[in-house]
Amino acid sequence: QIRRMLNGLPPVDAAHLIESTPQKIRGVLWQLVDIENEGDILQHLNDEVQSQFLSQMDAEEVAAITEGLEADDIADILQQLPDRVIREVLDSMDHQDRVRIEHVLSFDEDTAGGLMNTDTITVRPNITLDVAMRYLRRHEELPEMTDSLLVVNRNDQFIGVLSLRKLLVSDPSVTVREIMDTEVEPIPANMSTREVAQLFERRDWVSAPVVDENHYLLGRITIDDVVDVIREESDHSLMSMAGLDEDEDTFASVFTTAPRRAIWLGINLLTAFIASAVINLFEGTIEKVVALAVLMPIVASMGGVAGTQTLTVVIRGMALGHISRNNSRWLINREVLVGLMNGVLWAVIVAAAASYWFDDYIIGGVIAAAMVINLITASLAGAVLPLILKALKIDPALAGGVVLTTVTDVVGFMSFLGLATYFYR
Amino acid sequence: QIRRMLNGLPPVDAAHLIESTPQKIRGVLWQLVDIENEGDILQHLNDEVQSQFLSQMDAEEVAAITEGLEADDIADILQQLPDRVIREVLDSMDHQDRVRIEHVLSFDEDTAGGLMNTDTITVRPNITLDVAMRYLRRHEELPEMTDSLLVVNRNDQFIGVLSLRKLLVSDPSVTVREIMDTEVEPIPANMSTREVAQLFERRDWVSAPVVDENHYLLGRITIDDVVDVIREESDHSLMSMAGLDEDEDTFASVFTTAPRRAIWLGINLLTAFIASAVINLFEGTIEKVVALAVLMPIVASMGGVAGTQTLTVVIRGMALGHISRNNSRWLINREVLVGLMNGVLWAVIVAAAASYWFDDYIIGGVIAAAMVINLITASLAGAVLPLILKALKIDPALAGGVVLTTVTDVVGFMSFLGLATYFYR
Ligand SMILES: [Mg+2]
Ligand SMILES: [Mg+2]
Ligand SMILES: [Mg+2]
Ligand SMILES: [Mg+2]
Ligand SMILES: [Mg+2]
Ligand SMILES: [Mg+2]
Ligand SMILES: [Mg+2]
Ligand SMILES: [Mg+2]
Ligand SMILES: [Mg+2]
Ligand SMILES: [Mg+2]
Ligand SMILES: [Mg+2]
Ligand SMILES: [Mg+2]
Ligand SMILES: [Mg+2]
Repeated sequence: QIRRMLNGLPPVDAAHLIESTPQKIRGVLWQLVDIENEGDILQHLNDEVQSQFLSQMDAEEVAAITEGLEADDIADILQQLPDRVIREVLDSMDHQDRVRIEHVLSFDEDTAGGLMNTDTITVRPNITLDVAMRYLRRHEELPEMTDSLLVVNRNDQFIGVLSLRKLLVSDPSVTVREIMDTEVEPIPANMSTREVAQLFERRDWVSAPVVDENHYLLGRITIDDVVDVIREESDHSLMSMAGLDEDEDTFASVFTTAPRRAIWLGINLLTAFIASAVINLFEGTIEKVVALAVLMPIVASMGGVAGTQTLTVVIRGMALGHISRNNSRWLINREVLVGLMNGVLWAVIVAAAASYWFDDYIIGGVIAAAMVINLITASLAGAVLPLILKALKIDPALAGGVVLTTVTDVVGFMSFLGLATYFYR
Repeated sequence: QIRRMLNGLPPVDAAHLIESTPQKIRGVLWQLVDIENEGDILQHLNDEVQSQFLSQMDAEEVAAITEGLEADDIADILQQLPDRVIREVLDSMDHQDRVRIEHVLSFDEDTAGGLMNTDTITVRPNITLDVAMRYLRRHEELPEMTDSLLVVNRNDQFIGVLSLRKLLVSDPSVTVREIMDTEVEPIPANMSTREVAQLFERRDWVSAPVVDENHYLLGRITIDDVVDVIREESDHSLMSMAGLDEDEDTFASVFTTAPRRAIWLGINLLTAFIASAVINLFEGTIEKVVALAVLMPIVASMGGVAGTQTLTVVIRGMALGHISRNNSRWLINREVLVGLMNGVLWAVIVAAAASYWFDDYIIGGVIAAAMVINLITASLAGAVLPLILKALKIDPALAGGVVLTTVTDVVGFMSFLGLATYFYR
């Protein structure tokens, strides 16, 4: 009865169920899926689970189960396969499918061309709405998410959009040209999916035409796929802050997971040794005043927290497109001022607590000064680092945190222990 | 010419420009917006900037500039105001608008009812498509994102959906009943916006009907507003990991920003003092073996990194709805095993490095043991904490990181210095 349940569910829910299962049971569930449902379910699985199942199929099977899916979804699935296998799969498709999919595959996965589908309904500007409606009625069904007809000239160049909402309220005897919207800017095929998502978000589009550099209509992008892009982008920011990949399978096995995590731990270990080396410089001072060893993590950790806050605000601001050359200086200034103010505030409190705890005013003064230095550094680094990393084309969400905490650890230990060495001479 | 530019832009772009500006210039820009554009631009500003501008208007101004906006957008704006002012604004609206907006306002902001709009187009099941089309043609225009007509019975209870795509390809003489889709589950008004977003994502909806507990049709939710929910949710996960609010204005002034950040720093300071108190227990041991002070941050920081990775995976898994009672035990086991494997791997390497550095095998053995203990603890805590916090109805993204690093600091210092105290007796 599990088989019946699994095949009775909407494919997206069956995919969700399979994704939510540890790897061993997952293989069993996949065996229970009827062949005619495999393609539908496969397209909704995340990349990692997809390639796991695909690796057990040969090219003909892949071609068979993906038959009937939309071109963009087939392309997504094929992209998980090695190039040689893609070729084989394409060769076992019928001609028309092959051409459509090769078309989508010819664009980079992260561009509008890779995201688009080829299922457009096009009309000419000179026909009347009545003719357009009769043309529509000749279709068995309209493609999913069709909210508009795309108007093209005789060369298949995009010239405008006729929304169904407008078609349905207008006088049937007027021509398409009279009521079509020519203000809509079509999406160039090489626009990044991130920019596409921002456009859809801002313009509240349901679908949008994609054109090449000569304005030839290539296809259209629909909001459901844009929503997936938005979800992937947001997963990416969250996961890469912890050195993880957004495609990561929640239920990957121990032996898949451990090596992936190990790399990030190794990078962190290197930075931790750098911090230790800094502390080691002041071995003699710590030997004299052990309280320094007790208090030093406070300075480093407060810097890390302040820096991470700034870093997160700046990375989010960059993702929203708020931050540009014009306002980044203002933002850096504000962050440094905030760091200064909070540095002074908490320095006073920590100084009082430390002085009282160890009955020693010098240690209070030293920790206060180190706190102020480290929080200003942290704010400055948190604001400047993502801008620098972005200019170097390094993902700030991935590298930002590691570099930042290395800076705040080094500056924190250095200033605290350095000042202490001076004052406890 | 700035005024001309600002008022010539699409409202959403003008809003983006205003959001991307530091507070002083922002006030000036807002002055330059023509009154007839104020409402349109206001609805696209984030909550914080919105309430900043709203606080300078009286109730009648608010009523005037929001006239003509959609009910859900007006409700969003009003929710930034104190209850007394909302009352005043509603009183200065005309009767029909007031009723519509009171209706939306009567639902919690985070529910389907608070997200919906009231601009539905409804038809009866017994009319023919031809009649339905003539009815549509009587409208000046159809509401934005209309992809379907909602079919209701004579009591205004929802019974099905007739998509425009189907309407346009079907024989005009059939009745609505014959081709409407009755499989679509309407959204209950009290469903959380988070669940609504998951439904839209999975079902690839453009709009969906909202009903009350008696199946009366209340309104409909559209994908553009769902996209905003998705964006807000993802902002929330990212920002709250750093103790920040997702509504935070990137360009808030120093005096708004500093106190907000201060609270999070204060909480972190408390946890840092806890870690210091643990170190303080072993003052005597550190005095004897200063190398311990040099190496102890390594143990704590590796635990923090391993724990944060697990925490992020689990929080993301919960957000995607992957994690349930059935599979959480498997996940916890896997994480602990991964922690053990990586703990042993890096322990060996750190032990070798430490033994060589300080020419002392004991310190190598001690740090290796402490690393294994702390990485296992970290993985366990990273997996279990979000589940516990969620059960306690505390946001894991907000509280998880603080509690986790406190645990890894305490366990890290305790195991490392505790073992050292034993072996250096
Ligand atoms: Mg991918
Ligand atoms: Mg995919
Ligand atoms: Mg694709
Ligand atoms: Mg929008
Ligand atoms: Mg698609
Ligand atoms: Mg899709
Ligand atoms: Mg990816
Ligand atoms: Mg809002
Ligand atoms: Mg609302
Ligand atoms: Mg979807
Ligand atoms: Mg709306
Ligand atoms: Mg809206
Ligand atoms: Mg909010």
